Amino acid sequence: MIDTDGDVAPCLLPAGFRTAGVACGIKDDPTTLDLALFVADGPVAAAGVFTANRVCGAPVKVSRERVPGEDVRAVVINSGNANACTGARGIEDAKTMTAVVAEQIGCDPEAVLVCSTGVIGHYLPLELITSGIPRVAASLADSPEAFHAAARAMMTTDTVAKQSVHEATLAEGTCRVSGAAKGAAMIGPNMGTMLAVVMTDAVMTPGQVDTVLRTAVDASFNSISVEGHTSTSDTVLLLSGGAGPVVGGDGDLEAVAAAVTSVCRDLARAIVADAEGADHLVQIDVVGLRTREEAEVIARTVADDALVKTAITGNDPNWGRIVSCCGRTGVDLVEDDITLAINGTVIFREGVPVEYDQQAVSSAMRDEEQVVIALRFPFGESSTRFWTCDLTTEYVRLNSEYTT
Amino acid sequence: MIDTDGDVAPCLLPAGFRTAGVACGIKDDPTTLDLALFVADGPVAAAGVFTANRVCGAPVKVSRERVPGEDVRAVVINSGNANACTGARGIEDAKTMTAVVAEQIGCDPEAVLVCSTGVIGHYLPLELITSGIPRVAASLADSPEAFHAAARAMMTTDTVAKQSVHEATLAEGTCRVSGAAKGAAMIGPNMGTMLAVVMTDAVMTPGQVDTVLRTAVDASFNSISVEGHTSTSDTVLLLSGGAGPVVGGDGDLEAVAAAVTSVCRDLARAIVADAEGADHLVQIDVVGLRTREEAEVIARTVADDALVKTAITGNDPNWGRIVSCCGRTGVDLVEDDITLAINGTVIFREGVPVEYDQQAVSSAMRDEEQVVIALRFPFGESSTRFWTCDLTTEYVRLNSEYTT
Repeated sequence: MIDTDGDVAPCLLPAGFRTAGVACGIKDDPTTLDLALFVADGPVAAAGVFTANRVCGAPVKVSRERVPGEDVRAVVINSGNANACTGARGIEDAKTMTAVVAEQIGCDPEAVLVCSTGVIGHYLPLELITSGIPRVAASLADSPEAFHAAARAMMTTDTVAKQSVHEATLAEGTCRVSGAAKGAAMIGPNMGTMLAVVMTDAVMTPGQVDTVLRTAVDASFNSISVEGHTSTSDTVLLLSGGAGPVVGGDGDLEAVAAAVTSVCRDLARAIVADAEGADHLVQIDVVGLRTREEAEVIARTVADDALVKTAITGNDPNWGRIVSCCGRTGVDLVEDDITLAINGTVIFREGVPVEYDQQAVSSAMRDEEQVVIALRFPFGESSTRFWTCDLTTEYVRLNSEYTT
Repeated sequence: MIDTDGDVAPCLLPAGFRTAGVACGIKDDPTTLDLALFVADGPVAAAGVFTANRVCGAPVKVSRERVPGEDVRAVVINSGNANACTGARGIEDAKTMTAVVAEQIGCDPEAVLVCSTGVIGHYLPLELITSGIPRVAASLADSPEAFHAAARAMMTTDTVAKQSVHEATLAEGTCRVSGAAKGAAMIGPNMGTMLAVVMTDAVMTPGQVDTVLRTAVDASFNSISVEGHTSTSDTVLLLSGGAGPVVGGDGDLEAVAAAVTSVCRDLARAIVADAEGADHLVQIDVVGLRTREEAEVIARTVADDALVKTAITGNDPNWGRIVSCCGRTGVDLVEDDITLAINGTVIFREGVPVEYDQQAVSSAMRDEEQVVIALRFPFGESSTRFWTCDLTTEYVRLNSEYTT
């Protein structure tokens, strides 16, 4: 089950981590935070999951060479410029950012990871950033306020900072997992880049960090979609180590993985809920398939379908569009294999439309916290859970404004 | 090259074919045409291409058992009800339609093909249709007016009837190819069903008809997309035979195939141009790939991308979104392999943004007959051409109105 009531306050950092966010002038408004720094007091293990897009930003190319690693010290993030499609100069600029951070905190440049989000195809305003790095380093603190500032400095068109904290009890003691993310909201020439930094004081090997992160990402960031466009810069990083308990047997690893997954799910759902122009958060549950891949292709096809999304915008339990999505996935099925419920009301059972109270279902779609589309098949035990949002005129308006 | 100036007037039928369209009361307005009939005076060869959606309408299930065939006599089409997701009763209803037509024109029921388009999940108003069939049969004529009436009777939310006529010169003489289609426009609970009936008096074997149709569909109806949703009822039929020239050697077959392809392309482009809420017709040319499949996945990914579509709505030459689409296809490429032009102006060359007059390109997007996105790669000789439309607030409004 999903923990939909994850403890997202007071957003404490794990022991041994400090963060900061400052305004360095990349964005039009010089007071808007646009430079974030996440620092571990000593070397920690780190892993990353990066965009599958073959066209990827310079920071992705630089950071993915440095993880998994065991001597990572920091993550520096700027918003307002993605440093993507910027060629060899973009790579040099990204490396310069890590080198300047390394000077400030006293480590090897290779121990610093970097992310950028914002407009693509423009060179970084490097002087603004290198001038800002000493200031953001001087602001580092382990307070909730400092964590919030870092989360805000990552934002592009997000309307709220996205943070989550969960704890896990291991054999040696309790560890904390704290994460911040920025979302898939998009406007103008920005891509919908998704960035997340998750930190824990639990002590793991780089291999354990990598395993835990991949498990968590599959069940969270890889199970959301706003419009199905994988951006050039998507990055999720997990930093693990310091003063907390050492992860021992399998029970420990599972406990940490559960906490990291909970943090990632909170952040992923917050990204969908904050997608531009979105009126409805939509959860898609698909059960009874032969393989996880079958369940995922069905969930993703429904999630990305413009006809399903616009029906949800109108609170319309338009089952024909959903059933037709199932048929066009290529999964071996016919309509008699499909049972569909919306917010708990079955409206199509094994190929036959069911009499139901359309007005009641429409009202539930409008009023409940989220729209739940449940698809059941008779083939096996594989299932998935996926989140998306609706497609509104506001989304189109925001994304079609002339901005180049 | 595409024949964008295909001779679509005066929309004559081929020799040996008669058509009609009447109102039989399926639609709310009892005067709106909703029953079309296409009849060959004698048995003709026929082939069909049907939706790849595994959830498909009863008429698809009935008709695809009857083609390719060499004794086909008629196609009956109703609009206003798709007869999809209607179980065994739906199959019986579709067969009844063909049987009643067969009685009227004097043939075996198996010689009649059937299509339905409209709302899904409702049983056909069979009595209205069986009462209408004698009237539509009595109206059959070989006039341009009768052809136009049949084209109109297929329409759901199309705003214009879609017809095209081309001729081909064979060794034995000239043949005519005439087609009618209804489009992917969609509203309310309708799926965006695409139907087309193409007729020619050229005499071919069923195998030749099948080959010609598949070639034509690949370069036309399979190269368009409004929102990427393959409907439950998509059907394209080609009827061939009668008094025209017999298709002899390869030159003849190529000439007929070219004419059928031209008709199908005219109809396909007309469908995209008439898509609901569309402001821009978009042509996507992809050249220089290793395989046709690579070119197609790139074209389709760009065509179906909500961010690209909304940028076009705003006349915004937002190259970052297009380049990023190329990267997320899974095709083996990096940004240095990509060169992009919009309406003839190169704006991204081999990975490097090009200085260009943004205002001029934006004006061209707004003012020219279509937006042309040209993507060039250095890998090989394979290419494709694809058409789509933009994504507007009007599309969202039309598709999100509560209609269940």
